[in-house]
Amino acid sequence: MRMYDCIAGKKAGRELSPEEIRYIVDGYTQGSVPDYQMSAFLMAVCLKGMTRAETLALTMAMAESGDMLDLSAIRGKKADKLCPGGVGYKTTRVVGPMVAALGVPVAKMSGRGLGHTGGTIDKLESFPGFRVSLTEQEFFAQVNRIGLAVMAQTANLAPADKKIYALRDVTATVDSIPLIASSIMSKKLAAGADVIVLDVKSGSGAFMKTLEDSIALAKEMVEIGNGAGRKTCAVITDMDQPLGRNIGNILEVKEAIEALHGEGPADLLDASCTLAGQMLFGAGRAGSPKEGCTLAKATIDDGSAFEKFCEFIEAQGGDASFARSPERFPTAGVEFEVKAPASGYIRSMQTEEIGMASLMLGAGRETKESRIDLTAGIRICAKIGDRVEEGGRLALLYTSSMERALAAQERLLAAVEISGEPVKPREHVLAVV
Amino acid sequence: MRMYDCIAGKKAGRELSPEEIRYIVDGYTQGSVPDYQMSAFLMAVCLKGMTRAETLALTMAMAESGDMLDLSAIRGKKADKLCPGGVGYKTTRVVGPMVAALGVPVAKMSGRGLGHTGGTIDKLESFPGFRVSLTEQEFFAQVNRIGLAVMAQTANLAPADKKIYALRDVTATVDSIPLIASSIMSKKLAAGADVIVLDVKSGSGAFMKTLEDSIALAKEMVEIGNGAGRKTCAVITDMDQPLGRNIGNILEVKEAIEALHGEGPADLLDASCTLAGQMLFGAGRAGSPKEGCTLAKATIDDGSAFEKFCEFIEAQGGDASFARSPERFPTAGVEFEVKAPASGYIRSMQTEEIGMASLMLGAGRETKESRIDLTAGIRICAKIGDRVEEGGRLALLYTSSMERALAAQERLLAAVEISGEPVKPREHVLAVV
Repeated sequence: MRMYDCIAGKKAGRELSPEEIRYIVDGYTQGSVPDYQMSAFLMAVCLKGMTRAETLALTMAMAESGDMLDLSAIRGKKADKLCPGGVGYKTTRVVGPMVAALGVPVAKMSGRGLGHTGGTIDKLESFPGFRVSLTEQEFFAQVNRIGLAVMAQTANLAPADKKIYALRDVTATVDSIPLIASSIMSKKLAAGADVIVLDVKSGSGAFMKTLEDSIALAKEMVEIGNGAGRKTCAVITDMDQPLGRNIGNILEVKEAIEALHGEGPADLLDASCTLAGQMLFGAGRAGSPKEGCTLAKATIDDGSAFEKFCEFIEAQGGDASFARSPERFPTAGVEFEVKAPASGYIRSMQTEEIGMASLMLGAGRETKESRIDLTAGIRICAKIGDRVEEGGRLALLYTSSMERALAAQERLLAAVEISGEPVKPREHVLAVV
Repeated sequence: MRMYDCIAGKKAGRELSPEEIRYIVDGYTQGSVPDYQMSAFLMAVCLKGMTRAETLALTMAMAESGDMLDLSAIRGKKADKLCPGGVGYKTTRVVGPMVAALGVPVAKMSGRGLGHTGGTIDKLESFPGFRVSLTEQEFFAQVNRIGLAVMAQTANLAPADKKIYALRDVTATVDSIPLIASSIMSKKLAAGADVIVLDVKSGSGAFMKTLEDSIALAKEMVEIGNGAGRKTCAVITDMDQPLGRNIGNILEVKEAIEALHGEGPADLLDASCTLAGQMLFGAGRAGSPKEGCTLAKATIDDGSAFEKFCEFIEAQGGDASFARSPERFPTAGVEFEVKAPASGYIRSMQTEEIGMASLMLGAGRETKESRIDLTAGIRICAKIGDRVEEGGRLALLYTSSMERALAAQERLLAAVEISGEPVKPREHVLAVV
């Protein structure tokens, strides 16, 4: 087999065999296929596409380039939820407890976030004592005992994807649905869950800017997941504005606790129930996604989801009294009010830019070494469709200095458009695939 | 300017500006643009194409990456002929003397051949004493004095093309008309002629396998040449069988001498007159290509082309008595007859394979260091459409050992197809663009 023939084949629009795709991925990961051949191949894929069979073969080859986690020590069907890309991965802390409270095990392996705000792990570390460096044995035992555990990723998941992604990033070969789908799904398949629910973001803060593209990506990923023998579905959610109102680590934890009490923003609660409903249906715990959604909502009403959350925090060494009394969390030194520059209706919000403003406040990491300010972030006081008056409250910024606040205010204001005409509020859940 | 944006632009089908194309070529030649970005860009060009303006900009940027020859020390319009790719570049030795005999200067800078047979320089060195290492001053003076000179290429012509071609060769990005056309024309423009006649080969022994593709390539190159201010045209010639009957160095020189006497294969004489006619028209020496062709033929009939050839050999230190008495040339130690394996009509000849057979006999270089056997080669005794009888003569092989002859015979026989049905003979000149 020769890489030259694989490139020439894809360029001519030929469907490559699983063996050829395996040869390409293994060769590139091991270094026998050089960067310049791989980038020519990736460009040919961008422009000629891949069939479902090719995309599945690519995903499997990348997944199997590293460790494949074996979750068989956990009883029952393991469900996982994934939000690939996008600002604010906040549903995890609401959905996990709901699903676990209904007896479906959630075993979550997480990385630390690099970007606008910290990752799931950073947010959970807001609870004093919370420990993420579990051994696999501790991790499995905790899932079997209480149905929910999170551990820091230690396994070497899909190293081929990591190397290929770095090359795509510098050769303008990122925006190809087969390449995006296989990249995301290779890590997910390696992580071992039986049921995979994808939360695909659509809009200004996401990979996919249009609903049409988001649906196409979601379909591709669902096909891959099912093709690999995992029960997979996707929920497409809006990223044309942030979900909920809070951005930042402790701020998002507090919002999740509100949601678990049935309070807080309706969009966050609705999205969480929809996602949980899909997971419950996928795991066979509900007869339909709709029934799953109703069951999930009931765990809020009867308090079982909140109790599961506290149990989970305690099981991992965290102080759950902070969950019961969220006012105990530390707060930021500076609270700064951003005023509306004009009267009217919020017409659009550039989510990515708002994420950047939160990064400037200290909520995220600019480099792997950056320290996160857990108290920093943004509370959004007016969302799309809301009426604001000139000088009225648009947002609250939480940070450590006025300098940071003023810089972030500028970025935030540039990201929000106010219109004289009334604007329709947006739904958060756009479609289910 | 960023390479990433240039790649993304071409991928999206955008027309790049001349400044962007210059940036890419200069960046790659100087090393600031890495191989892996260039190969992604080249693949995007293969699949998205280039406009005429882009192709011209690419050609100019590659031409100007090295020396641009200044032929202004030569009086009159300088004509050049180029045969890009293909087996047997044999018209040069017939066309040059014809055109020079009519007063149009031909200043030819040549490289040494790597492939089936030697290049123009190797063939001319069949004349004892022939010297190709002229200084530029000697070269210009000789063209001004007798109208014809050949020197070994010393200038650094189009180094960008050399580097880009090497990358295309390993990334399956060779077969793109804008890339092929710009590669060929960049060297031609750098070589400085005012009138460029392209001999574009079509068929099994050439870059372009079909007439349609050959015409498309020819059109692209003619547009580039004219766009760069050079009078350019292209003659498309058949490579589905070798031109003339001889392949090899001294063998081809002898055949050229026959043609200059009006003898030898008709296809070689016709092709030479057509090419010369175009050069004479381009240089303003004839009112039409047809008139040029007639004028060229007359230089054969009145002996002036042959006399010019002898004058040229002598001017460069060669012994022209070999031209006047070709039987003086050394001959090969082994002459081997290839017999027809069946009776019938020659239906097809794989030109490339016949070239390989001649290489096996010792006529060409396998590596840059190989020594050429000037006496080695093939005389083809039956061409497409000719009737042969089983055991009758198909070809004569000239070489230094029976071992080489037997190996070459096998390759040659595999390249010739004999049919029971009569086959139409082929024209050599297929089209003029």
